[in-house]
Amino acid sequence: MKILISNDDGISSTGIAALVKELKKIGDVTVVAPATEQSAVGHAITMKYPLRVTEYFVNGEFFGYAVDGTPADCVKIGIRNIMKDTPDIVVSGINLGSNAAINIIYSGTVSAAREAAIMDVPAIAVSVASHDATHFDYAARFSAELALKVVQNGLQTGTLLNVNLPDLPENEIKGVLITQQGKSKWDDIYEERIDPYGKKYYWLTGNLVETDYSLEADYFALKNKYATVTPIHFDLTDYKTFEILKNWYLEKKKI
Amino acid sequence: MKILISNDDGISSTGIAALVKELKKIGDVTVVAPATEQSAVGHAITMKYPLRVTEYFVNGEFFGYAVDGTPADCVKIGIRNIMKDTPDIVVSGINLGSNAAINIIYSGTVSAAREAAIMDVPAIAVSVASHDATHFDYAARFSAELALKVVQNGLQTGTLLNVNLPDLPENEIKGVLITQQGKSKWDDIYEERIDPYGKKYYWLTGNLVETDYSLEADYFALKNKYATVTPIHFDLTDYKTFEILKNWYLEKKKI
Repeated sequence: MKILISNDDGISSTGIAALVKELKKIGDVTVVAPATEQSAVGHAITMKYPLRVTEYFVNGEFFGYAVDGTPADCVKIGIRNIMKDTPDIVVSGINLGSNAAINIIYSGTVSAAREAAIMDVPAIAVSVASHDATHFDYAARFSAELALKVVQNGLQTGTLLNVNLPDLPENEIKGVLITQQGKSKWDDIYEERIDPYGKKYYWLTGNLVETDYSLEADYFALKNKYATVTPIHFDLTDYKTFEILKNWYLEKKKI
Repeated sequence: MKILISNDDGISSTGIAALVKELKKIGDVTVVAPATEQSAVGHAITMKYPLRVTEYFVNGEFFGYAVDGTPADCVKIGIRNIMKDTPDIVVSGINLGSNAAINIIYSGTVSAAREAAIMDVPAIAVSVASHDATHFDYAARFSAELALKVVQNGLQTGTLLNVNLPDLPENEIKGVLITQQGKSKWDDIYEERIDPYGKKYYWLTGNLVETDYSLEADYFALKNKYATVTPIHFDLTDYKTFEILKNWYLEKKKI
């Protein structure tokens, strides 16, 4: 079983180390990850500049390939150039911080997995819900278990699995739920500050406002101490509106 | 009618100038756009660094606000801090280059409009299908017409419209079609090159391979000289797989 591992926190992150250690028990692992932190880059890819690939060592031992690009870049170049054969699965993570609800849109971790799905390779994104996460053991073991199930059962083309776990020891996690992207939005605040030269600058902060209080919503289930598995796709067509628009009479000419 | 205009090619792009000129005829326009080109940044947002906002002038006349961030950043800070009232509509573009099929995922232009939709503001993204596009007149007029229709008719919360036009004079455009995100994928190639110091670097190129040959597919319709309007949403849950996963028995414990 050939496994490509990437992330968005960068190749030196504690989360990716935990994932690599566990997935090496079930397959042949190649790591291709961003050289530097790439959180909230969404599905950015690098076209205007070239990419560099550097071998990355931990305690003198080869760990993987560091790419000076985005998570999606890493998966693309990992599959196209670095690996000899197409991997059986791509696993992205373990991210420090949840990627649930509307945050799926902004997530580099999820985009790495989504890039794999676009390339017809089954994929999982894994996150632990704290920026100071320390509980990676169960998350890594669950990732390995799920990766095996995905390769066994297969996933529909264009689908990936987005996994979130509470930052808790295994015995405090209530269970695993199959969930949906919870409805939510950010109540953004741009903090206005003044730099040492008297000029204004703005820093994004804010609160995620959830509006979906069922255990089928990823964000709510996660807050209630469940691990969540949300199937994600990238067919963005809104089919309901597609039918409605036909009555807007936008056609300039008949076909 | 209050209109916020943004893009991903940057505030000095010819495409945004054409859009601003036309939309000023139908409303009160505020421009908040990236200071520099931000193509293919996807739905990236800036959290690790602060943003700067600079007044941008064209021939000594105030044109709009330049932000040293991404398209999604511009829409967020435009709505939250720069505009006094929430706009009636956000229009993103006019992009030089199509944003159809799988490219919707990578597009900064579409992400600006999507950020507006996330914030409950109706939005349109507009692109002309050539990186050297010159035919903006009809695209700008069509954007104004569509913006009026959107404000009149409303759009379902969470939906935005993604418009693509061929780079042709109006009389050569066959008509306007309501379309879906065409199925396609990139056949990526990383060109391997050597820098002046003898080190390797990789540059992303490739071809878009479409697999959807109907006039309901945005990319195919566009190639056949139609303007296309594709309704887009951001509920990424794959509901079909959601049901299937329930039979994978992932639950660690019963609830």
